[in-house]
Amino acid sequence: MIVNLMVVELHIYGLEGIPEVKPGDDLATLIIEAADREGIGLMDGDVVVVSQKVVSKAEGRVVRLDTVQPSRFALNLAEAEGKDPRLVELILREAKRIVKARDGHIITETLHGFVCANSGVDRSNIPGEDVVSLLPVDPDESARRIRDRIREIKGVDVAVVVTDTFGRAWRVGQVNFAIGVSGMKPLIDYRGVLDAYGYVLKATSIAVADEVAAAAELVMGKVSRIPVAVVRGLRFIRGEGSARELVRPIKRDLFR
Amino acid sequence: MIVNLMVVELHIYGLEGIPEVKPGDDLATLIIEAADREGIGLMDGDVVVVSQKVVSKAEGRVVRLDTVQPSRFALNLAEAEGKDPRLVELILREAKRIVKARDGHIITETLHGFVCANSGVDRSNIPGEDVVSLLPVDPDESARRIRDRIREIKGVDVAVVVTDTFGRAWRVGQVNFAIGVSGMKPLIDYRGVLDAYGYVLKATSIAVADEVAAAAELVMGKVSRIPVAVVRGLRFIRGEGSARELVRPIKRDLFR
Repeated sequence: MIVNLMVVELHIYGLEGIPEVKPGDDLATLIIEAADREGIGLMDGDVVVVSQKVVSKAEGRVVRLDTVQPSRFALNLAEAEGKDPRLVELILREAKRIVKARDGHIITETLHGFVCANSGVDRSNIPGEDVVSLLPVDPDESARRIRDRIREIKGVDVAVVVTDTFGRAWRVGQVNFAIGVSGMKPLIDYRGVLDAYGYVLKATSIAVADEVAAAAELVMGKVSRIPVAVVRGLRFIRGEGSARELVRPIKRDLFR
Repeated sequence: MIVNLMVVELHIYGLEGIPEVKPGDDLATLIIEAADREGIGLMDGDVVVVSQKVVSKAEGRVVRLDTVQPSRFALNLAEAEGKDPRLVELILREAKRIVKARDGHIITETLHGFVCANSGVDRSNIPGEDVVSLLPVDPDESARRIRDRIREIKGVDVAVVVTDTFGRAWRVGQVNFAIGVSGMKPLIDYRGVLDAYGYVLKATSIAVADEVAAAAELVMGKVSRIPVAVVRGLRFIRGEGSARELVRPIKRDLFR
């Protein structure tokens, strides 16, 4: 194990001044420019945390509800849960299955395997009436593209985490989660490792990418236009990584 | 809403050099001394994040398994799940109910209402063979005591978050959660607030205390002796607060 001799110090910067993102925009360039404007610049080893919303916008994953024709099933479910049938149609298209529909909530497993409300389809922080964003088709690939472009333009090797805020079972309130990862292992596995007292840790694997996502939310907020944060000073395990590693296989999930 | 004009910048410091904590130790003093040694000192508005393990040690919430007499029920459950019956006895004593027992896992609702594995009873990072720690009896009260003592000794008003790492439904890996809070509102409620585009947010309440806990874990780690982190620069809502606010009432929980 790494013996730590330094002061352990982490810095998280929220990047302001990123303009309204449009389909086809190069997020890497916008992020590099914003980091330069703030005087922090992107550096080797930084973790760049990007909110799903701007990734979806850049990738054109935005839908006007008046273009959506709800199915009979969507109409029924919408009526049962008191939701807009066109929104429910999109939720169903983005879902592998419905985990729970009750009390006005539709919790689904998305096509990627994430369990969240409304398949991640969301109206907030998008310009225009009745426009919603869908999650990126492949958020790992989205993260990889941003990472590769940053390396290409700026010559630095960063990790990228794409995030969205989800609710949780058992607890009140939403928290930011990693839905796409590139350049870092999302889990640190401590199983078999000795703790500070020589005890062999048995069941500890830390979802560090989720913790990075949660940490970044603290500077991003929900109503300020800060869709990107830079985490500096984190010691993480480099590697391609994938947020799919954070999805518990259904056979080993006690709660699905 | 607060309009943000500053660079949004958060710093997280892991406090090293906190000695082995014994029953009756004054954690506030140990934290103040460690922060001073690191040259950061505690400041007004800091959030001091303290791992459950040292709180439990200071409060004497540590049990030698050879002092525990398992009940018949504990013996049966231990056999079914392949666990030490004395450990299972403690898990049951700390539980309000068993949420799920399967595949070698015992997920309970603790006396506080937290849903986690083994009622939070844990063997890691404690000196001695077959010694386990229990969660603090009242982690909010633990946080409040540390906060009050820091104000008393150092004259600064900090928030305190007591944390433990729990597993999650649906996702792989553990994450640090807030189990005790003092001096901050653990939730930021955005319902009814306008987003950056004038859309009224409907279902967004952010569990900021959980995000703080997760962020702090990034510098605390599982095998290094860093039981305390200081989060500096966070804009949070002051108030007494309680981690119980983060526990979803069973009637509004779709997954219990």
